[in-house]
Amino acid sequence: ESANEFQFQKDCLTQKLRDTESRNQTLEVQLCDLEQCLESNQREREAFRKSLRSLLELLDGKIFELTELRDTLGKLIESS
Amino acid sequence: ESANEFQFQKDCLTQKLRDTESRNQTLEVQLCDLEQCLESNQREREAFRKSLRSLLELLDGKIFELTELRDTLGKLIESS
Amino acid sequence: ESANEFQFQKDCLTQKLRDTESRNQTLEVQLCDLEQCLESNQREREAFRKSLRSLLELLDGKIFELTELRDTLGKLIESS
Amino acid sequence: ESANEFQFQKDCLTQKLRDTESRNQTLEVQLCDLEQCLESNQREREAFRKSLRSLLELLDGKIFELTELRDTLGKLIESS
Repeated sequence: ESANEFQFQKDCLTQKLRDTESRNQTLEVQLCDLEQCLESNQREREAFRKSLRSLLELLDGKIFELTELRDTLGKLIESS
Repeated sequence: ESANEFQFQKDCLTQKLRDTESRNQTLEVQLCDLEQCLESNQREREAFRKSLRSLLELLDGKIFELTELRDTLGKLIESS
Repeated sequence: ESANEFQFQKDCLTQKLRDTESRNQTLEVQLCDLEQCLESNQREREAFRKSLRSLLELLDGKIFELTELRDTLGKLIESS
Repeated sequence: ESANEFQFQKDCLTQKLRDTESRNQTLEVQLCDLEQCLESNQREREAFRKSLRSLLELLDGKIFELTELRDTLGKLIESS
């Protein structure tokens, strides 16, 4: 009787442990996915920032060229 | 004797379950943190994209104004 | 006889003088026209130069605004 | 007496003719100078207009390049 009772409690605990371990695995997989997602986001963000920096340099170049053009026009007006 | 054996097994299982549940909680907290981190990143990304869109509109305006200036210069040259 | 001769010479001179004075008047009218033409050109040139200077100032403004936009983009990239 | 009178008139006319012819020459030189001045102005104006047209083409190029840069930024924002 007592042996049955013990067996029942043991089975109960074993089942609960199995469920919890299974839940654990699921959580670990989710955590791993999220971490990869975050890393991937970080890489995208860096790549995006790098592209924007290239664009900023291009814009710098255009502003410089417009300033040269402006100076050429200024000299042209003064010499005319 | 058998009762002692059972008790030992039960204690073992209980301890293991406790550890696994504790590990579970830790994982759930980490998962929650990561999810909030991802959401926060997503919000920042959206805000950044919104700022960039505003900048794009400003750039459109500047290009439009430069084009008007170009047309004014063109007409001036032809009328001179 | 000598009187006729003198009269002939006098008429000749008078005619030549008249022709030269007439040519003179034509030249003075042409000169006056050319001077007005030059003045008008000078005025046009000044007006043109003034328009170009206004355009130059507009271009300065656009370059300044593009530089502000560039700085905003630069800060945005660094803060992201 | 009458001969003297004639001679006097003839001298008078000759002098006047000489003055008028001299004035004529002066006017022709001035006219020639002004015509050369006008032609020179015209050539300068053409050269100026040509320089401005080159500048207009440069400005067209810059506007085109800014528009390309704008499109690159637009695509970057949408792809991010």
